[in-house]
Amino acid sequence: MKPKLHIIKIGGNIIDDSPALNRFLTDLSSLQEPFMLVHGGGKLATSMSDQLGIPTTMIEGRRITDEKTLEVVVMVYAGLVNKTIVARLQAHGVDAIGLCGADAGIIKATLRKHPSIDYGRVGDIDHINLTALSLFLDMKLTPVIAPVTHDQQGNLLNTNADAIASALAVALSSLYEVHLQYCFEKNGVLKDIDDEQSVISRIDLQLYQELKASGIIHSGMIPKLDNAFKAINNGVAEVNLIHASQLTSLFTPHHAGTKLVGSFS
Amino acid sequence: MKPKLHIIKIGGNIIDDSPALNRFLTDLSSLQEPFMLVHGGGKLATSMSDQLGIPTTMIEGRRITDEKTLEVVVMVYAGLVNKTIVARLQAHGVDAIGLCGADAGIIKATLRKHPSIDYGRVGDIDHINLTALSLFLDMKLTPVIAPVTHDQQGNLLNTNADAIASALAVALSSLYEVHLQYCFEKNGVLKDIDDEQSVISRIDLQLYQELKASGIIHSGMIPKLDNAFKAINNGVAEVNLIHASQLTSLFTPHHAGTKLVGSFS
Repeated sequence: MKPKLHIIKIGGNIIDDSPALNRFLTDLSSLQEPFMLVHGGGKLATSMSDQLGIPTTMIEGRRITDEKTLEVVVMVYAGLVNKTIVARLQAHGVDAIGLCGADAGIIKATLRKHPSIDYGRVGDIDHINLTALSLFLDMKLTPVIAPVTHDQQGNLLNTNADAIASALAVALSSLYEVHLQYCFEKNGVLKDIDDEQSVISRIDLQLYQELKASGIIHSGMIPKLDNAFKAINNGVAEVNLIHASQLTSLFTPHHAGTKLVGSFS
Repeated sequence: MKPKLHIIKIGGNIIDDSPALNRFLTDLSSLQEPFMLVHGGGKLATSMSDQLGIPTTMIEGRRITDEKTLEVVVMVYAGLVNKTIVARLQAHGVDAIGLCGADAGIIKATLRKHPSIDYGRVGDIDHINLTALSLFLDMKLTPVIAPVTHDQQGNLLNTNADAIASALAVALSSLYEVHLQYCFEKNGVLKDIDDEQSVISRIDLQLYQELKASGIIHSGMIPKLDNAFKAINNGVAEVNLIHASQLTSLFTPHHAGTKLVGSFS
């Protein structure tokens, strides 16, 4: 039987909210099983760019990353956000280690080539270094992973944190029973975006397609759910989307949030 | 016999000079023995502070680190500088891992209490996590260490990179034959600050005291040499101060730079 591993993604809106982040990290510290944390960067990169006079361009929720924006992304995500989380987890007795994709070569990516949009220094993942990650876990370390990768040719790349969480979960499933949790600022996948009580407790690919077709699931939820379904359909044991404040409910029999039902479940 | 380990400190002036840094990292990559790299931050933190409208105050070459300055230090040192170096070393085939003192709890420090100067969020080192560092070295990883530590209570602290290199060298000497190299923008300790050919090839504590008393060694060289002597007098096998461009000469019989002679040598 494979050992259990939680991969927990925490979204930008929680990162931006210091008391919420502290509560989340306290909850996380109570987790008795091995885990790794993948974090986004939130609005801090945008406000830092503003202060530095670097214009921010977003296309479909993705940041267009020119050289100057990449520097901000690396500073904020792999520097300030990552190390702040690591120091706080260490204070809670979690032996955290902050990593970006270049560190120990854990995540190699390739510069995105898009037929019509120039995303700039954005990378799509093509390799996870399973050996290094599993050795860190053997050392009882808790990797805290920033959404920055590298191309093995000396260049850092901005990479979506939801995609990193999904790719890590799929790769680590060969060695672990992986439970992937997307923690964000909503109670789960909602039937009505304005009603936090309208949580869809279970969603399979067919329901997802229907809700997408009817426009109920749209914009930023689409890439998130695409990443989540990619995980559940490629060997990941469990995938949930849940409000960050309800993390601990995941470890009870009737947890909150939306549970994905895979094609092979 | 203990295995050999090089601890290489690279100063801020080289970090600021992109072609020089690239040459240095290329030289470093040719090193056939295990090493770790400790880097400073250079003027980038000051220019970033300027751009963000945060005033910079230096006292005796040390940065007064208020909360806002600490954020800049963490972003620039543990983020941009650290990850840029890691990505470049990875491209050269060195399996680098970027760490600050909070990561895996490798360097614990205590907030500096000075009788007359408030240094702000500056930490003095009180513990090195030898177990974690030696496991990374066993994994054939090359730690790249940013001059940021933590207090184990959730706070990051700005810590002098020369002091980190010295403390790491002393701690790791219990397991390794440590060779500590301070690489900087001068040819070594100079008899005449304006003459790069006036390198003192060997210096012991007595000569150091004499040169300090006569004012030949002054300002920033004093804390650097204090850290260097602390290392050579506490179990470190070899300590040199050398121009960054002459790194590879260290691995020849008659190397460049200044070699420290310890009290017990």
